[in-house]
Amino acid sequence: MTTHAESVLADCPLFTGLESAERDEILAAMERETHAAGELILREGRSIQILWIITRGRCEVLKSMTSGGHQQLAVLEPGAVFGEMSFFHPAPHSASIRTLTEVEVLRLSREKYDQLACDGSIVGYRMASNAGRVLAERLRRMDEWVCEMVARPGGETHRDEWREFQKKLYTEWQF
Amino acid sequence: MTTHAESVLADCPLFTGLESAERDEILAAMERETHAAGELILREGRSIQILWIITRGRCEVLKSMTSGGHQQLAVLEPGAVFGEMSFFHPAPHSASIRTLTEVEVLRLSREKYDQLACDGSIVGYRMASNAGRVLAERLRRMDEWVCEMVARPGGETHRDEWREFQKKLYTEWQF
Repeated sequence: MTTHAESVLADCPLFTGLESAERDEILAAMERETHAAGELILREGRSIQILWIITRGRCEVLKSMTSGGHQQLAVLEPGAVFGEMSFFHPAPHSASIRTLTEVEVLRLSREKYDQLACDGSIVGYRMASNAGRVLAERLRRMDEWVCEMVARPGGETHRDEWREFQKKLYTEWQF
Repeated sequence: MTTHAESVLADCPLFTGLESAERDEILAAMERETHAAGELILREGRSIQILWIITRGRCEVLKSMTSGGHQQLAVLEPGAVFGEMSFFHPAPHSASIRTLTEVEVLRLSREKYDQLACDGSIVGYRMASNAGRVLAERLRRMDEWVCEMVARPGGETHRDEWREFQKKLYTEWQF
């Protein structure tokens, strides 16, 4: 019998290409957590290397504004992943995640993930490879978005600094 | 004795955390190529899953302009990697790479890389994990750059569409 958590994982692009037994390996390494509505699961500015997947309920992505208060960037549904940026590169979270309803999540700590890989499991490779795919796709879309924006009338003012920024992207932050 | 290629790999963030024997595994899977000055190694719009590392010489990153002609985005030196975006996510290359001098590169095909991982080598995991780290860092910097730009006077016109775009980034292209 397939549990609800197993089917959420099966549909998640982060676990593409994993066999059922490999997803079981990941599930065994994850912890299940429930949160009441209105709880902060992840706080902007903090840095924790945990990957979360929502299995039930909804969360909002909140970003603090310079004028004070918070702005809602998006609403996340079951199957959504968060924490992935800091999971792969330790750095402060760029936004907060707050529950809108009672929420059930699966969490994977970086230690458990590294352990899987060091034990010689192919799971670590497949997850990292899938993450690379998703991050590369986001970068590409973002690049397209900015290129399109600065090319339009009204975008002239940002063209030179975009060129400078692109140069840095290609050289300073090279692999 | 450490060869020149070995020392370039040792300094490359894509191979961080690899033991010397593991770097040798990668080197054995790579092919060495030389190109004359003025050659196109990678063509914008094409999609090839190969990862290149420059070991000698310099290349330029060129992007075609809507007005015709090309614009130089950056100059790459030994140690620089290119092709990494399409290597992790098959999609057309967003820019061309042309040699400025005689150039020596090491190239790794996606097939060879997948083979390493399937053979149970930790090398595939470490490379994918390092790539995830670099791509996440680039995304973070790009996000910061755009947030800062739209917050400035003159950026108002792009604020709403940036908000819409961010929402998509958080939901539609979730893992």
